[in-house]
Amino acid sequence: MTTAYVLHYAPDNASLIVRIALSEAGAAFTTRLVDRRRRAQTEPAYRALAPTGRIPVLETPQGPIFETGAILLWLAERHPAAGLGPAPDSPARGDFLKWLFFLSNSLHADLRQLFYPETQVPPGAIAGHHAITSARILQHFALMERACADHPALFAAPSVLTIYLCTLMRWSVLYPAGQTRWFDAADFPTLLDLCRRTEQRAAVRDAALAEGLGDTPFSAPQPACPPEGSAT
Amino acid sequence: MTTAYVLHYAPDNASLIVRIALSEAGAAFTTRLVDRRRRAQTEPAYRALAPTGRIPVLETPQGPIFETGAILLWLAERHPAAGLGPAPDSPARGDFLKWLFFLSNSLHADLRQLFYPETQVPPGAIAGHHAITSARILQHFALMERACADHPALFAAPSVLTIYLCTLMRWSVLYPAGQTRWFDAADFPTLLDLCRRTEQRAAVRDAALAEGLGDTPFSAPQPACPPEGSAT
Repeated sequence: MTTAYVLHYAPDNASLIVRIALSEAGAAFTTRLVDRRRRAQTEPAYRALAPTGRIPVLETPQGPIFETGAILLWLAERHPAAGLGPAPDSPARGDFLKWLFFLSNSLHADLRQLFYPETQVPPGAIAGHHAITSARILQHFALMERACADHPALFAAPSVLTIYLCTLMRWSVLYPAGQTRWFDAADFPTLLDLCRRTEQRAAVRDAALAEGLGDTPFSAPQPACPPEGSAT
Repeated sequence: MTTAYVLHYAPDNASLIVRIALSEAGAAFTTRLVDRRRRAQTEPAYRALAPTGRIPVLETPQGPIFETGAILLWLAERHPAAGLGPAPDSPARGDFLKWLFFLSNSLHADLRQLFYPETQVPPGAIAGHHAITSARILQHFALMERACADHPALFAAPSVLTIYLCTLMRWSVLYPAGQTRWFDAADFPTLLDLCRRTEQRAAVRDAALAEGLGDTPFSAPQPACPPEGSAT
């Protein structure tokens, strides 16, 4: 089988979302570890693929693609039979795109702020920033809870919306390490139910096995114990 | 001519980007002011269209679409002859999507942080937050400068990437009001040249006239003097 794709990943990083999508698409891919312990994402070889230094990047026959949302959308378009998202000519396309961008620029972006506050504010402001940011993220989750309840077909697996959203739920339960009381998945029953159903899919189980995420990576997540070691 | 679209806008808000894209597409549209002076974006009628409360929302025959990036991408797909972006089967699609998501979730999202710091951090941390956030945004602009220099065809007007990027340049010159020394457009000569060429397009001149932006809305922006009054 031709391996068309190379996924540059770190365990339990946003590359997890792309790994699941690739698996749902039935696409052949190889993986390459971005070793965060030696900050490999800052090195020239990685920056040549992803100038932002973020993980993941997906090497494709069309060149490297970075940005999780962009990779997900591109895979959905390239593998139309996989059901990763409505086609460009589908009446559901607008709804799909608006939530995909919202997940990317609001829920995911704000979680990054919450998890790496030292890159956002001076040290003395971290507690205040945590309170403000976590409150905003809970509003985002409330919007997603309502959207999923109102539009179950749009958020049914294997949509990339679902894979993305369930992974963001996972991280919200686990991080920031030692400061997780801001989030209670039980407050979002529709999302939690989506997590339970989605984690039973073969693509998710395979990804969880590869990255050491256990049997309930979305609904009752535990810190990753990946074969490669540290997931941070 | 059938008016297929209704653009809910406020002058010099992100709706400006969509207004220009609609005009480039030759699409018939009407506009409806979201009166920020009375915080109309928080009212139930608007939230029914855009639950995030953000401006713009575009009403379409497929329902309302919010999120600037989503609307731009949807318009590019619906109006393929307009040249707003490479088609899904184009070899340039991956490059297009990755920069569109980056503009949305990094450059635009971080500018929103910089312009509305009171929604991000406690009052005492605003100065430190400004310093950290503006430094990060300058790194984003440096990436865009290099991307535009390396891939001129990808960023040629009327690509929605260009419309989006030039508008973000405009705001960076003008905001936060009274605290604009963080940004000097001359530091990004490729982007500034793109601004100069793009603002000569009929679609941009029409939008600038409609929203009171003057003759050089991108390369030498002045605060908006819209017929409706306040642009904030």
